[in-house]
Amino acid sequence: MSQLLRVQNFTVSRDGFGAGEGRSLEKPFGHADPGALMSWAGATASWPNRTDPGGSRGLDDYLTRDFHRNIGAEIMGRGKFGPQEGSWEDHEWQGWWGDEPPFHTPVFVMTHHTRPSFTLSDTTFHFVDADPATVLDRAKEAARGKDVRLGGGATIIRAFLEADLVDTLHVAVSEVELGSGVPFWKSPDELFDRFHRDVVPSPRGGVTHHLFWRK
Amino acid sequence: MSQLLRVQNFTVSRDGFGAGEGRSLEKPFGHADPGALMSWAGATASWPNRTDPGGSRGLDDYLTRDFHRNIGAEIMGRGKFGPQEGSWEDHEWQGWWGDEPPFHTPVFVMTHHTRPSFTLSDTTFHFVDADPATVLDRAKEAARGKDVRLGGGATIIRAFLEADLVDTLHVAVSEVELGSGVPFWKSPDELFDRFHRDVVPSPRGGVTHHLFWRK
Repeated sequence: MSQLLRVQNFTVSRDGFGAGEGRSLEKPFGHADPGALMSWAGATASWPNRTDPGGSRGLDDYLTRDFHRNIGAEIMGRGKFGPQEGSWEDHEWQGWWGDEPPFHTPVFVMTHHTRPSFTLSDTTFHFVDADPATVLDRAKEAARGKDVRLGGGATIIRAFLEADLVDTLHVAVSEVELGSGVPFWKSPDELFDRFHRDVVPSPRGGVTHHLFWRK
Repeated sequence: MSQLLRVQNFTVSRDGFGAGEGRSLEKPFGHADPGALMSWAGATASWPNRTDPGGSRGLDDYLTRDFHRNIGAEIMGRGKFGPQEGSWEDHEWQGWWGDEPPFHTPVFVMTHHTRPSFTLSDTTFHFVDADPATVLDRAKEAARGKDVRLGGGATIIRAFLEADLVDTLHVAVSEVELGSGVPFWKSPDELFDRFHRDVVPSPRGGVTHHLFWRK
């Protein structure tokens, strides 16, 4: 089977924003509360950032536990890696995730401002100034036959959709409204020409899962 | 995390039977048509017995592709292994699955009529005459830290539920009615005292998924 490019556990507000306005070191999601937006995922047993035991093992957990399955690399935007813009003043910032990032694979950060690769635990971050198709080629090579996760944010996912490079998407639509922020879509039907879709409301409430795969 | 005992993709009729009556070499599910009962699974991209490419990658596929995730061994009843009853006349029968069984792990077949272990591709079948707790101990040891799949049929799953050894269950309730056969439950509410449950109708139709996990 060929290598897929997969969007997983990508959560947007009811009005289609992937993050709020005014993102900063203190507010990675801007005026959006990531705890509220991601509460569906945080309640599951398999959420990669979970720190305490327990958690649900129902439908939502099937979605969070698929995060790592057969993934060999991740692609993310610079906005997901950190709040800085423009040239790097230094290389002290190594992402939000501390010494044990939850990726456990090579990660390709798309940015016009490259810097040397570095490794934290079993995750290596590479910085690439290239178009989506070129970055995907590099990520697929690094993934050694496994799939590639497209980690977001919204802007990067839109760029890969525009280049028609995405094979499957799981978009979780939260009940939270943001009013403004980083736009992902106006409506899911923007994808209907190229993708099949299943819509599944979480039995636990708070979120509706949209599962897309190529026609 | 401790090793779980998981029931996965176990499909029952709307009236609660895991297989029909009159099982034989020609009719592994008796008067039940396995193609109709399992059509929800056969339509997915990740169904282990799939022979042609394609298939859906929506909700039902999340369920079928979890079949192998973190599984290190399977336990099954003799009725799943083959249609014979009583002592083995010979050891020619090696299961329904040909030279490439879809398990890829040790498999423990529970039976009062043991026979020597044998290996087909990367699956080794062991035959064990013991109670559920003892078989589970052996399977967990063979699984080397991974979870154990409880593969069915209905009678074996009921025995492990009775011994309170099951951690999670995915039971797919088909719209097919059988009228008679091997009983699994009269109603899902038999499990409510010990398990949480999510109920998720497949967006593709034909089946409703019941996902249970321990309270």
